[in-house]
Amino acid sequence: MMMRIDIISAVPDIFDSPLNSSILKRAQNKGKVEIVIHNLRDYAFNKHKQIDDKPFGGGAGMVLKPEPFFECIEKLQSERKYDQIIFTSPGGKLFNQQTAKRLSLSGNIMFVTGHYKDIDDRVKKSFATEELSIGNFILTGGELPALLMIDSIIRLIPGVLNDSESALDDSFMDDETIEAPDFTRPVEYRGIKVPEVLLSGNDKEIKKWKAEQSKILTERWRNYNN
Amino acid sequence: MMMRIDIISAVPDIFDSPLNSSILKRAQNKGKVEIVIHNLRDYAFNKHKQIDDKPFGGGAGMVLKPEPFFECIEKLQSERKYDQIIFTSPGGKLFNQQTAKRLSLSGNIMFVTGHYKDIDDRVKKSFATEELSIGNFILTGGELPALLMIDSIIRLIPGVLNDSESALDDSFMDDETIEAPDFTRPVEYRGIKVPEVLLSGNDKEIKKWKAEQSKILTERWRNYNN
Repeated sequence: MMMRIDIISAVPDIFDSPLNSSILKRAQNKGKVEIVIHNLRDYAFNKHKQIDDKPFGGGAGMVLKPEPFFECIEKLQSERKYDQIIFTSPGGKLFNQQTAKRLSLSGNIMFVTGHYKDIDDRVKKSFATEELSIGNFILTGGELPALLMIDSIIRLIPGVLNDSESALDDSFMDDETIEAPDFTRPVEYRGIKVPEVLLSGNDKEIKKWKAEQSKILTERWRNYNN
Repeated sequence: MMMRIDIISAVPDIFDSPLNSSILKRAQNKGKVEIVIHNLRDYAFNKHKQIDDKPFGGGAGMVLKPEPFFECIEKLQSERKYDQIIFTSPGGKLFNQQTAKRLSLSGNIMFVTGHYKDIDDRVKKSFATEELSIGNFILTGGELPALLMIDSIIRLIPGVLNDSESALDDSFMDDETIEAPDFTRPVEYRGIKVPEVLLSGNDKEIKKWKAEQSKILTERWRNYNN
């Protein structure tokens, strides 16, 4: 069965070019995933298509109103069952490769993205099955985080990558390991040569070198981030 | 002086709609930042515009060749001085709000993004002043991470956000704090009411409630992510 991903956004135009490039485009063209964008403004109540308003209790920024989200999410829920309704949120669980693997096994998932200050909290409380964060920094909206998560998820759906792109030796594929550096032709460029061992044809030595390099880079990465 | 951001990519189309939406568009229109995309293929040597090749030592995936990067980066360096040449890389330092603050004070910065397997390591070794990662998961390329970092950085340039959007009370603005939930009109929707205190007009009580809620959500976030 094809995976379906629905995304609700107040700024749906953001998605245009990323969804029509590279693997995200190919996965859709191959029929491996259907990605449907919903413009929050289409679910606004009044003539002015108002979707945001000032926060109660004061403070800067505009808050996205609850009604358009309730309308849109309930319409989608009436049409099919969703395995997950994911809110992109700075206070959520940090997205990682394990989350991507788990979500790649889903049937239908929905991403609800905020923009500007935040979404009225009643929406999250009523619908969220999961809150996911992309990291400890401030963004204008949840659209780019949703795109990152979706790219990471759909790469894992069988048949999206072809054999030669197999993701099995990528960094993070197995636990928290950074892979060895890559080199391609020319053998020498601007006086810098590719490491001899990679040209040796000796599979055992190449494997050993890659494991050593991977260990060095993984240790460097741990030192950076702990 | 206006900040300038150059981005080098093998799949430059990805950037079209995100750079023409929301705050990223506005920051450029206001003259606060100039963002220039460079198509790696324009710097390919041969007629076939080949930019990738098989990895030495075997393994799946294609590696982006060194020559087009050297040509493009050196051309840009001959035109202006760069404060940072940033490579998006899974093995880099995890990007966070502190990094965004630091980079928002730069003059010119360059983002070099890989796609598919990786970039020939000689490029990184020759030019990278900084390697930044967006998290512990596998992506198709560095384009979406670069967009996320750029969104986060340019929000901090004075004059990009207007007063009513001031980012001072966002999550992560001061250390690792998740902010209180937000609510807007209507006061009651689907039987769910906005917390009474937010309607009270009592600034002292509102401040106390927000601090309590922030503490609860920050603790939840720490439990999630430790």
